[in-house]
Amino acid sequence: MKITVLGAGAWGTAFGQVLADAGNDVTMWAMEPEIVAGIRDNHRNHVRLPFIEHLPDNMTATGDRAASVKDAEIVVVAIAAQFARVALAEFKGLIPDSAIVVSLMKGIERNTNKRMDEVVRESLDLPSDRFAAISGPNLSKEIALRQPAATVVGCENLDNATKVAKACTTDYFKAFVTTDVIGLEMCGSLKNVVALAVGMARGAGYGENTAAMIETRGLAELTALGKAAGADPKTFAGLAGVGDLIATCGSPLSRNYTFGANLGKGLSKEEATKVSNGVAEGVPTTDAVVALGDELGVPTPLAYAMSRVLDEGISCAEMLSLLFGREITAE
Amino acid sequence: MKITVLGAGAWGTAFGQVLADAGNDVTMWAMEPEIVAGIRDNHRNHVRLPFIEHLPDNMTATGDRAASVKDAEIVVVAIAAQFARVALAEFKGLIPDSAIVVSLMKGIERNTNKRMDEVVRESLDLPSDRFAAISGPNLSKEIALRQPAATVVGCENLDNATKVAKACTTDYFKAFVTTDVIGLEMCGSLKNVVALAVGMARGAGYGENTAAMIETRGLAELTALGKAAGADPKTFAGLAGVGDLIATCGSPLSRNYTFGANLGKGLSKEEATKVSNGVAEGVPTTDAVVALGDELGVPTPLAYAMSRVLDEGISCAEMLSLLFGREITAE
Repeated sequence: MKITVLGAGAWGTAFGQVLADAGNDVTMWAMEPEIVAGIRDNHRNHVRLPFIEHLPDNMTATGDRAASVKDAEIVVVAIAAQFARVALAEFKGLIPDSAIVVSLMKGIERNTNKRMDEVVRESLDLPSDRFAAISGPNLSKEIALRQPAATVVGCENLDNATKVAKACTTDYFKAFVTTDVIGLEMCGSLKNVVALAVGMARGAGYGENTAAMIETRGLAELTALGKAAGADPKTFAGLAGVGDLIATCGSPLSRNYTFGANLGKGLSKEEATKVSNGVAEGVPTTDAVVALGDELGVPTPLAYAMSRVLDEGISCAEMLSLLFGREITAE
Repeated sequence: MKITVLGAGAWGTAFGQVLADAGNDVTMWAMEPEIVAGIRDNHRNHVRLPFIEHLPDNMTATGDRAASVKDAEIVVVAIAAQFARVALAEFKGLIPDSAIVVSLMKGIERNTNKRMDEVVRESLDLPSDRFAAISGPNLSKEIALRQPAATVVGCENLDNATKVAKACTTDYFKAFVTTDVIGLEMCGSLKNVVALAVGMARGAGYGENTAAMIETRGLAELTALGKAAGADPKTFAGLAGVGDLIATCGSPLSRNYTFGANLGKGLSKEEATKVSNGVAEGVPTTDAVVALGDELGVPTPLAYAMSRVLDEGISCAEMLSLLFGREITAE
């Protein structure tokens, strides 16, 4: 079947390769003419996946919006979260009425505090049964190298989730299905707060115990928040929840990890932002989690402690002692 | 209060230091005269924790069984799991009737397939309300370096769990309490099967995605098994479950990880055993998990796949494809 991927970043391109490996005809759409030409003419994305020497032959690219999505049965959106609304507006009316639109994006839109499912559906005026989200422990570099991985496809309409899951199943990539779109979206965005805290602990010189403690308590915090927001707690215990958390916190190359590590070494938020060439996604997400917790009446001790790190520059040791009271309690 | 630690291995000594840091008078008992003398005379355990230059002044050691436990309010057992029954038999009748006995041990006794709580209670003829288990993401080296960590203390009698938790609370070590002793015991021993599989994936050259996928599916398998055995699923979602799993699988120095990595590089069980100077705990535990699953009617695909690795030498890719069917399902 024809599948179009909007955005040829590392994850979009790696997922396009999965779809092509599964036997689909894949069209990448990208803004950058040199990336389009590279994929179309040389089967390479030398900018975003330079180590992949030959993308599949059944993968092509175009810079023409209308042509890219024409006759597509599935349209995958892999645009940077903060630019999704503007970029998708240009595709409104072009995407076939029968197509399922799948988001690979993770994050919360700044200013509006909206999830990506909300941003995509609003931008395209898309009914919820035609929207699907994909989330799991899917570091793009490893997927591009065809290492074994699994993910979760979520859609209110389980048949459509299954259709997308089938379209991306290969011998190295396994997709599970769920109807819990909100859970997937929350897992994908909120984990960045935990990654920031784990990076901070690493930067302060702490090892596996401290990281595991933060991840476990962070997972409990996100699960409680998700449950209050109407998500299924099981999603947080699965690949998109704990799975993605483990992969993200285990990867020292991620932006949130590095930003956190600089905080842990004693840099202020401003200094870390300068060193990182911009703020990491987990920074605004921290405030969004605190606000969401207040709104839903759910305690968010980790996000709160991280907000004190970001706003007041408290140390990692202070952050951790804020996380736990002195009283002896059940977990 | 007076607390005795039986066994001066790395974890026993590090936990003894936590207890001493919390203000208790700690007596270590060890078989080896040179370790006893080192701790008692020089405040060092140069054999098991050579990088710690001065153990606390309120920590001493003896090789005399009766003297070691005399007047102890808490007796901590930190003996190698497979030797616990024989070693503890010598303490029967010596431990004060009012003392709480705490196990730091993780594992399943070979031949009997019994948990450590069962081994300790049988060896000492101990009532269940005086037995406590401790389990969490607690790599001993990091605890010895006083890095921030948390753990869970479990006892059928919550007052006794709280007493133990208070006795080991310091500014770097936080203890939570539970009554779910079986859950703690199962988490501590069964995770080794997952560590073996993650080590194998690492040895085969795979990265974070594959490891996170195995950990997530392994956690679900252990949780289902625990639930069927009467444990509380929440224990598996907490520090002793997912927390310890993350720390163990993140530490390339652990025996199970290394053993698994050698399997992943293509060594047979026999070759890996030779290289490792003995079999890793996860190897017999794999068979115990498969047997327990059969007994309780719970599917254990990861343990089953690992048993095929150990018995038939199937590859990591084959192990992973055994783990997942081709059908599209919910997680």
